Amino acid sequence: MPASQLRSLNIDNINPHIKEAKYAVRGELAVKSEEFRAQLQKGEGKDLPFDSVISANIGNPQQLDQKPITFFRQVASILENPGLLDSEEMLEKHCGYKSDVFERARQLLKDVKSVGAYSQSQGAPGIRQSVANFIERRDGYPADAATIFLSAGASSGVNTLMNVICATPQTGVLVPIPQYPLYTATLSVLNAKCVPYYLNEESNWSTDVSGMRSALEKAKAEGIDVRAVVVINPGNPTGGSLAPEGINEVLELAAEEKLVCIADEVYQTNVFQGEFHSFKKGLRDLQKSRKNKEGKFDNVELASLHSISKGMVGECGHRGGYYEMIGFDPEVTAQIYKFVSIMLCPPVIGQCLLETMVNPPTSSQPSYPLYRAEYDGIAQGLKDRANALYTTFSKMEGVSCQSPQGSMYLFPTITLPPKAVEAAQEAGKSADEYYCLRLLEATGVCIVPGSGFGQREGTLHFRTTFLAPGTEWVGRIEEFHKGFMAEFR
Amino acid sequence: MPASQLRSLNIDNINPHIKEAKYAVRGELAVKSEEFRAQLQKGEGKDLPFDSVISANIGNPQQLDQKPITFFRQVASILENPGLLDSEEMLEKHCGYKSDVFERARQLLKDVKSVGAYSQSQGAPGIRQSVANFIERRDGYPADAATIFLSAGASSGVNTLMNVICATPQTGVLVPIPQYPLYTATLSVLNAKCVPYYLNEESNWSTDVSGMRSALEKAKAEGIDVRAVVVINPGNPTGGSLAPEGINEVLELAAEEKLVCIADEVYQTNVFQGEFHSFKKGLRDLQKSRKNKEGKFDNVELASLHSISKGMVGECGHRGGYYEMIGFDPEVTAQIYKFVSIMLCPPVIGQCLLETMVNPPTSSQPSYPLYRAEYDGIAQGLKDRANALYTTFSKMEGVSCQSPQGSMYLFPTITLPPKAVEAAQEAGKSADEYYCLRLLEATGVCIVPGSGFGQREGTLHFRTTFLAPGTEWVGRIEEFHKGFMAEFR
Repeated sequence: MPASQLRSLNIDNINPHIKEAKYAVRGELAVKSEEFRAQLQKGEGKDLPFDSVISANIGNPQQLDQKPITFFRQVASILENPGLLDSEEMLEKHCGYKSDVFERARQLLKDVKSVGAYSQSQGAPGIRQSVANFIERRDGYPADAATIFLSAGASSGVNTLMNVICATPQTGVLVPIPQYPLYTATLSVLNAKCVPYYLNEESNWSTDVSGMRSALEKAKAEGIDVRAVVVINPGNPTGGSLAPEGINEVLELAAEEKLVCIADEVYQTNVFQGEFHSFKKGLRDLQKSRKNKEGKFDNVELASLHSISKGMVGECGHRGGYYEMIGFDPEVTAQIYKFVSIMLCPPVIGQCLLETMVNPPTSSQPSYPLYRAEYDGIAQGLKDRANALYTTFSKMEGVSCQSPQGSMYLFPTITLPPKAVEAAQEAGKSADEYYCLRLLEATGVCIVPGSGFGQREGTLHFRTTFLAPGTEWVGRIEEFHKGFMAEFR
Repeated sequence: MPASQLRSLNIDNINPHIKEAKYAVRGELAVKSEEFRAQLQKGEGKDLPFDSVISANIGNPQQLDQKPITFFRQVASILENPGLLDSEEMLEKHCGYKSDVFERARQLLKDVKSVGAYSQSQGAPGIRQSVANFIERRDGYPADAATIFLSAGASSGVNTLMNVICATPQTGVLVPIPQYPLYTATLSVLNAKCVPYYLNEESNWSTDVSGMRSALEKAKAEGIDVRAVVVINPGNPTGGSLAPEGINEVLELAAEEKLVCIADEVYQTNVFQGEFHSFKKGLRDLQKSRKNKEGKFDNVELASLHSISKGMVGECGHRGGYYEMIGFDPEVTAQIYKFVSIMLCPPVIGQCLLETMVNPPTSSQPSYPLYRAEYDGIAQGLKDRANALYTTFSKMEGVSCQSPQGSMYLFPTITLPPKAVEAAQEAGKSADEYYCLRLLEATGVCIVPGSGFGQREGTLHFRTTFLAPGTEWVGRIEEFHKGFMAEFR
């Protein structure tokens, strides 16, 4: 008898919905790139045609060039060792701590008692209030701490919302294509239906509500009970950033079709062109406007997600985030509370870092000048690298790229010669996977094929972050691309 | 039209499996106790018959008396602010940091680069190796870092394992009764079957394999495909601690019936009588023994879970833990890797605290004396409080309690007068819920009714932690109990 049959679990009898789930961001290519990195670290990679691995596959700022914001981490160091509060003077004199660092640490410790203690499952009350204050300042509309749930990164919030929404195998959720694969993977695991709608590449990856409506009608005709619509703004992997009109159109659709609107706004501070418009503000504006006939928008359910992982903060390893639940039935919110309580609470130090993110030093406070300089420096660096990468892509044969608007990614279209497509088929890969694999093997640069996010039939893309420092690696892509095109011309 | 019908989600159309899930540890009583606490904090609770709330409902050491271990937190403070490495001398002189603190911080930073960066989804490689070394020292058998998954507390590990195991609504998992409700709640959410087996209260809550076998046969006869067996050792809520024979019996059952054995060993250092025996050592011993006829034990699949939340560490707010996967099919392990990668990675600072837990200062290192003193002090305090509580319970009318063996809980039987049971029925509560609610309202002491964990039909229990400092609150329980018994006699 083969060994697999001697065991309880094998690939054919485990949860089939987990088998179906796809998550390319950390898939085969990422695993292979880690193997290369390990080889190089051990000094074993002498045969490799590159001397470093560039992880442009995942938005992991601090694994690359980005430094943490000093104020946040000084506060965190005291939260981890409150004994340091006895040495204020010395830390100020020798380690650059300012008085507002100690004040903040004291205030947070009062709220959580210890970062080693469980908080309320929804998150510490004082931190939730601070998040509410931030939303209020951002949007000019009140926010209620009771409707804010802290989470282990935005991913965990999405997981919770999807768990509650997905009632049957016929439950559907409208998901943009291309999308961050968290959404399709979670829907697979929950055995629910992804109802794809395509973004408009030609107009900077904007939402196309008529396309959303036809996707919805088609799904309904197939008996799918569509209950929610996901919007990622600014976009991942696209980098697109929505104008207020685009947001209003989605909210109108949500109101008319009674869909929960899930606004993934984790890149809200990563905006290079124009400014960020939140779905919450959009909804409150509509509720006040003439468009709100017969209270059309009064009961729209909106979940808006944010995170400490992205932006100029980049604290993804700390797993902090929140979601605000607007317009939900209190009985539903109570079920969400119960659901999150099974996992006890989000990481408390991540909650505290969230508090520093939403409530940073203000201009009159001693930590402000350094905070401002660090924040602006990171923002400028991201913008510069985005533009440099965009310029390079614009020059490459068969590559066409929308100008960078937001988030941490570019998602160019690539047009490959027919012979390359054939070679991919022979290798049992899709053409974009084949391209990215060859790039990794030739240059050590790891990017993600467009098929990992979804793309229109017959088109090919890849996603790259612009977090990696320097421009040398961009040159590696350019050179590889030339050779690849020549090989298959 | 009622507002609920204007929304997408209401209590009748969300995921029914979430509605079904029960999680009493943070349920109605816990919520009510937090309301009392908030009232008292605001100075509004003058009408309440108590002046403080005692949270004996949940194992949350640092919310109560327990201080974090200094070495762990000194290391964590540097990980949060590596700039402190530039002030070694000063921190040594003024803040009690020793040289091994800096060494450890440097070593961990080398492994993770920044605690703000994502790690591998399975956890940082160096930390997994450190966990493997710990297991090897503990059991005297090798452990492989490749089979160790770091997790956000043990709860997240259990969630992952259950997600993979639960393939259909007919999949069943043997779960001890009483149990920590994470298991039943997770099985409810996953729409799988809990197959309960009862622990032997009269012999210190030991496992009864004949009872397990009959539960299994009954389930099979009902068409349930039982695929795993959960053992919590030391027990939660029971406090029982298994002898090697008990462990062997469970492993024999697992081998004969091809069940995955899920060993929840998060209380492995909370043992007051005898010593802890791991399932891993039990399995390896059996594999070497004469009992391993025809390789009977060679393919047993064992997942052993541990955590930084309990023990003398008590860092539950940091959400750190691990599970070792022994004997699993590599294709299954690969699916687990993909599943955890959807949530990116466990909190990295929690991973680092796990490393300090499994690799604490050794006797030759400068941080050792304080570490030893703190660790032993916490252990002794827990033991003393467990015994004090046990002595009090032993004196109370209608209360019978097994002597404390392990974990952080006592789970006494209470026998209530028929009139009390009637009063509970009138209030729409089970008798144990009613008792715990009345206790909370009268004394501010929050404990959890036995029905939250499961108990034999016709018996009543409650679970209390023995983490709360002092003995005054124990007196409150004693006095309330007298009055309650007198009221309903």
